[in-house]
Amino acid sequence: MAELVPVEDAGDPRLADYRDLRDVELRKNLEAEHGLFLAEGEKVVRRAVEAGYRPRSFLMAERWLDGLADVLESTDAPCFVVPEDLAEEVTGFHVHRGALASLERQPLPTLWSVLEDARSILVLEDIVDHTNVGAIFRSGAALGFDAVLLAPRCADPLYRRSIKVGMGAVFSMPWTRLDDWFEALPSLSQLGFTTIALTLAEDAVDVAEAVRGVDKVALVLGSEGHGLSARWEAMADKRAIIPMAPGIDSLNVAAATAVACYVTSHR
Amino acid sequence: MAELVPVEDAGDPRLADYRDLRDVELRKNLEAEHGLFLAEGEKVVRRAVEAGYRPRSFLMAERWLDGLADVLESTDAPCFVVPEDLAEEVTGFHVHRGALASLERQPLPTLWSVLEDARSILVLEDIVDHTNVGAIFRSGAALGFDAVLLAPRCADPLYRRSIKVGMGAVFSMPWTRLDDWFEALPSLSQLGFTTIALTLAEDAVDVAEAVRGVDKVALVLGSEGHGLSARWEAMADKRAIIPMAPGIDSLNVAAATAVACYVTSHR
Repeated sequence: MAELVPVEDAGDPRLADYRDLRDVELRKNLEAEHGLFLAEGEKVVRRAVEAGYRPRSFLMAERWLDGLADVLESTDAPCFVVPEDLAEEVTGFHVHRGALASLERQPLPTLWSVLEDARSILVLEDIVDHTNVGAIFRSGAALGFDAVLLAPRCADPLYRRSIKVGMGAVFSMPWTRLDDWFEALPSLSQLGFTTIALTLAEDAVDVAEAVRGVDKVALVLGSEGHGLSARWEAMADKRAIIPMAPGIDSLNVAAATAVACYVTSHR
Repeated sequence: MAELVPVEDAGDPRLADYRDLRDVELRKNLEAEHGLFLAEGEKVVRRAVEAGYRPRSFLMAERWLDGLADVLESTDAPCFVVPEDLAEEVTGFHVHRGALASLERQPLPTLWSVLEDARSILVLEDIVDHTNVGAIFRSGAALGFDAVLLAPRCADPLYRRSIKVGMGAVFSMPWTRLDDWFEALPSLSQLGFTTIALTLAEDAVDVAEAVRGVDKVALVLGSEGHGLSARWEAMADKRAIIPMAPGIDSLNVAAATAVACYVTSHR
């Protein structure tokens, strides 16, 4: 059972995990250094704990205690109970879903264990926006994908906003980070995946055609601004496009991923 | 030719249109009262002006003038040229895409004119998130939809963030707001549209099946949290779902819309 610890002072050092949640750079450093991540909202906090992430602590106003009673029952981590305005003072924003938890990151699984039984996977190169990363995990999970691989520079799926937008899909979907950006796609091909890059390249074919009859598919997605690197675009087994109306630049990467996942799940 | 007006004082009343851009409630009031909206970034500013919206003024640091020279050439609105840190002081955030424009809203077109030649339309009930509204416009435009209708309480497509996420699709896509929430769907049915509500309702059929063989389609989308109102869900001609993996709640509304638009465009 979590010990309930009333805290009245925003400067209390025990609240260090929850400071300045809107400052992305500061959070990146703090979370990497201490091996933690933050979950926000009753549903997401519950999913994180149920997925096996060990809580370091919780922070919430008194009125959220009941909703998370079963979760608090299951752990020995302290639960800091604070006035609502103190939560805002510490975190830097209005915590409208109430509960926060700080949880321990786990060592990333090996590529091998993530891919072992996978038939449909997403490979994200340099997606920089946490909202997009979260939305992509959620769409992949909903549309029957088995795993997500991240290039070394892809944004963190355990960043608070990724988790929130993904509705915790990052806890249920197996994922890991690729060590070797340069050889990533050839390695996947060797493992039996057909790597299909979503791109506006000249030789891109309709994605429905690209996935047809393919057994193990790796959909490869590039960054929001300039898309895939030249290396990844060239090394993919196929280049594919979602056919679009004339005069439109492109779909948002999260929307394109949802469509491509749908098409792939119907291959 | 826009007159270039150097401004050095963040309190200058001529910058009133650009104040506190991160304060959603304040902006809603200010923009409604003055009939204006804000466009951000060279590409989006250009698209707004080219789409026929009349600029009230521009605000940018000197280094952005060249990129928008042709746009500034085409108007008599003043262009306030400011130091970079002053732009941030006025707007409340770092304007990383440089140029801002304040433009006049136009009277909304009639439902009749928006629907006249439309075969595929989106109908948004109470989408509250501007990011989602923008993403939905962008997906609809890319995937061949002809128009968007908004329920009275749907978030504003001309809000800065909607425009930015939509990459200006709100300027090219015909849209208007429905006056009559209660009779909206029956009216569309009378106009020959098959209204198809995306929902998790028990009697929802696969969206691919729902749209098959339908001529004029109206895809009906509900709010992020609780989905469609009971009235709209009941009054739609069909209820449809995107088939999902077991144990997953739902797709994000923008992702679901992208998939549904794709499926509908292939009907």
